[in-house]
Amino acid sequence: MTNATKDEHSAKNEHAAKDERAAKAVITTPADREIRIERVFNASRDRVWRALTDPKLVAQWWGRGNKLVIERMEVERGGHWRFVEHSAGGEHGFEGRYSEVTPQERIVQTFEWDGMPGHVSFETATLEDLGDGRTRLITTSLFHTAEDRDGMLSSGMEGGLNESYAALDRLLATNF
Amino acid sequence: MTNATKDEHSAKNEHAAKDERAAKAVITTPADREIRIERVFNASRDRVWRALTDPKLVAQWWGRGNKLVIERMEVERGGHWRFVEHSAGGEHGFEGRYSEVTPQERIVQTFEWDGMPGHVSFETATLEDLGDGRTRLITTSLFHTAEDRDGMLSSGMEGGLNESYAALDRLLATNF
Repeated sequence: MTNATKDEHSAKNEHAAKDERAAKAVITTPADREIRIERVFNASRDRVWRALTDPKLVAQWWGRGNKLVIERMEVERGGHWRFVEHSAGGEHGFEGRYSEVTPQERIVQTFEWDGMPGHVSFETATLEDLGDGRTRLITTSLFHTAEDRDGMLSSGMEGGLNESYAALDRLLATNF
Repeated sequence: MTNATKDEHSAKNEHAAKDERAAKAVITTPADREIRIERVFNASRDRVWRALTDPKLVAQWWGRGNKLVIERMEVERGGHWRFVEHSAGGEHGFEGRYSEVTPQERIVQTFEWDGMPGHVSFETATLEDLGDGRTRLITTSLFHTAEDRDGMLSSGMEGGLNESYAALDRLLATNF
């Protein structure tokens, strides 16, 4: 391999690595009851906001390609949400309630999976306009106990999350 | 005052103090996100359990004399509950979900007031048969933050709780 081809190869790898970074959510644990998720989307804040809050759009990405039935989605303080994902493995229900809805900026809500009823996390999603047509979505989840947090981390959430966000990428690349 | 009348007076005070202790819930804060409530009822564990889990009975004491509409009360793991108290001051909705229901022994559930949507506490209620016809009810509540816990403590919950439990005392003294 010549230096030229090596450089070309390395540049390709760097490019691939950059795409990879852009395409995967960065998941960290700032404290023993917390999970922080950061992900950049190639779309304006307005479009990301709509994809997060319009039930017709949410139905197209949240279920990662699986059928998603949105039973309730009242996007306002005090409103409830409940989604049921239908996959080959069965049905999975998720629900919660909106604590704060600040258009374009922030959604604060609870999150509960039917499989662990009563184990509720408190989630804050913040949208940052990066000024170059991209938007950073940061979600922090606070659990009642470290055990609940660890249970979420070991549930395969990372794979599911990246599948959902990849489906959201595809939706954001379309006209809506 | 003679010694005899002093003794009599003191005995009366002791008796009153004992009644007072029996009639008021003991509220403590074992940790910065927790509230613990202990209360003894003059009834068997079976009767206390029924008063806690039969919607027709709950409607008679939970609202402290105010009209209580039980919109949902599915007393089983994963079931939801929602009560609306109608008072002169307006309507107050409360809701949550059952995480564990172990007959006669334990109910684990979430608790959320409509006025603070998304602020959910995780409650464990345990019934102890005291062996003398009385039952001790211990409820521990775990909040997501110390601020949520302090908000609950300063909400007038103690007065409301003692009113509810006094109404429960009256119900337990009847035939059902």
